[in-house]
Amino acid sequence: MKIAIYGYGNLGRGVELAIRQNPDTELFGIFTRRDPKTVKTLTGAPVYAAQDVENYTADIDVIIICGGSASDLPEMTPMLAKSFNVVDSFDTHARVPEHFANVDKAALTHAHTAIISAGWDPGLFSLARLYMNTVLPDGKDYTFWGRGVSQGHSDAVRRLPGVKDARQYTVPVEEALAKVRNGENPELTTRQKHTRECYVVAEEGADKALIEKQIKEMPNYFADYDTTVTFITEEEMKRDHSELPHGGQVIRCGKTGLDGNHTHVMEFSLKLDSNPEFTASVLVACARAVIRMNSRQIFGCKTLFDVPPADLSPIDPEEMRKKLL
Amino acid sequence: MKIAIYGYGNLGRGVELAIRQNPDTELFGIFTRRDPKTVKTLTGAPVYAAQDVENYTADIDVIIICGGSASDLPEMTPMLAKSFNVVDSFDTHARVPEHFANVDKAALTHAHTAIISAGWDPGLFSLARLYMNTVLPDGKDYTFWGRGVSQGHSDAVRRLPGVKDARQYTVPVEEALAKVRNGENPELTTRQKHTRECYVVAEEGADKALIEKQIKEMPNYFADYDTTVTFITEEEMKRDHSELPHGGQVIRCGKTGLDGNHTHVMEFSLKLDSNPEFTASVLVACARAVIRMNSRQIFGCKTLFDVPPADLSPIDPEEMRKKLL
Repeated sequence: MKIAIYGYGNLGRGVELAIRQNPDTELFGIFTRRDPKTVKTLTGAPVYAAQDVENYTADIDVIIICGGSASDLPEMTPMLAKSFNVVDSFDTHARVPEHFANVDKAALTHAHTAIISAGWDPGLFSLARLYMNTVLPDGKDYTFWGRGVSQGHSDAVRRLPGVKDARQYTVPVEEALAKVRNGENPELTTRQKHTRECYVVAEEGADKALIEKQIKEMPNYFADYDTTVTFITEEEMKRDHSELPHGGQVIRCGKTGLDGNHTHVMEFSLKLDSNPEFTASVLVACARAVIRMNSRQIFGCKTLFDVPPADLSPIDPEEMRKKLL
Repeated sequence: MKIAIYGYGNLGRGVELAIRQNPDTELFGIFTRRDPKTVKTLTGAPVYAAQDVENYTADIDVIIICGGSASDLPEMTPMLAKSFNVVDSFDTHARVPEHFANVDKAALTHAHTAIISAGWDPGLFSLARLYMNTVLPDGKDYTFWGRGVSQGHSDAVRRLPGVKDARQYTVPVEEALAKVRNGENPELTTRQKHTRECYVVAEEGADKALIEKQIKEMPNYFADYDTTVTFITEEEMKRDHSELPHGGQVIRCGKTGLDGNHTHVMEFSLKLDSNPEFTASVLVACARAVIRMNSRQIFGCKTLFDVPPADLSPIDPEEMRKKLL
């Protein structure tokens, strides 16, 4: 099973490493828009120019596209789905219908298979929501994120004048979590679910009070949250905030019984040391499923909702029933 | 979608109630081996004699078989799979290969679809193990059960001379759970994972010390566990132990990264007020999937490993991607 990586940032590097953990997969190489000669890979994998990808249709079973959701994936995934089976981690929720339709059209026309929006949210958390909603139709679910680094929010802070570097952690509010786990099905505002912690390295002479005010009042990103801003040194940033941990939980509480007198709480939680490496591991499993579904002539755009779980795993069905059922 | 229930104990009653929560399903009726006239249903559903089931092949889309795994299901499921699409909750792990083969043969020969071993363990916990193993190949997982009533262990105590009634709770050991959640991947013996609590109503004049000894030394059931035995009155049994709660968690801890330097912990947990009602809810979702898979000519015996998650849900694909992805 030959996998290519298209785009070589944190996620691409994660895929490179995840392929080493899956002996039934093999890394064909990495495609980059940079000059391939300037890219040094973690494992010595070969690097190719992105524009040459069409030359390798016969050598690649599936491409894992590791671009950003804002501008890369909406272009790349439909384009590559014409010539390859593909997997991406598209996570701009509002634009999923449009992206799905574009990828579906390209993949169907060329008898390819695509899985979009794979990872953990969207991805494994979506699956948790689906299974939970199905089993407990009379209930309510909650998704909490964190404690973990939000790259989008970190970037938003970094763009402020006077900010040299920044890291933003999303943190679930423990009281809210406890109420949900307790089956209370509370109504929670945005502010009641998460807090935001910012660690900021300011430029010399910058107005820290102004930076703090600008962060806390930033619409969409921070205004609806209780936000704390802590100024730190470059050394502290490097020492304490160089990793990209994340996680969270999906919890659904629902009722069954003659009078709805029985309450059930389902929870799926993740505690991740490295968001990109974990996401990459999901993408590699999806790459396996894409190849299998394609060989069964299941074409077009799919999400994890459409994938029989067994197709994700390298274990054969009999062994799987024996070991995991 | 017309569903019939075959067998009317706790699980069958749970299915009867779960069907009410799923407006796209309809209860055709209940088949029982007892005299139908003697069976009073929770919702007034019609009751038929089990031996007449073949008369209704045209009226039923799928049968949910609510028998015991020890002797009922190994006979019933292959027999009914000849004439119907079927779902069962077979949970005798060691006999799954044999049961699967028997059901597969019957279903394939008659172009029917069957899902066996559905519920929460086997079932949703199996799915959790599969997804977790797939995403974190370099890791170790643990399943804890409880705190909850084990019917098999309760029955084993009830069979002892001098015991009038008994309820056994399986309880996970908190220290073990904490170590696993902390990513320590401990080696745990049976005794270190769970304790067992027995509540016993003794016959008048029974030798309580002997009963306690016999419980604690019972091979397979209790000898390998730290077991506590508490004698209570019939009134206390009725007041405090008439429900069938259960639950547990599947936890997998695994590593990724260039030097395996990143640890990830995945957890799926359930806290259930009613084990049979929750199990029944899973079975009804599987009934939906069986009908859909059958209409796509996917015949034979399946488990939840083979079911595209979307097939379990009443929500249409577009709405599903919008609401749950």
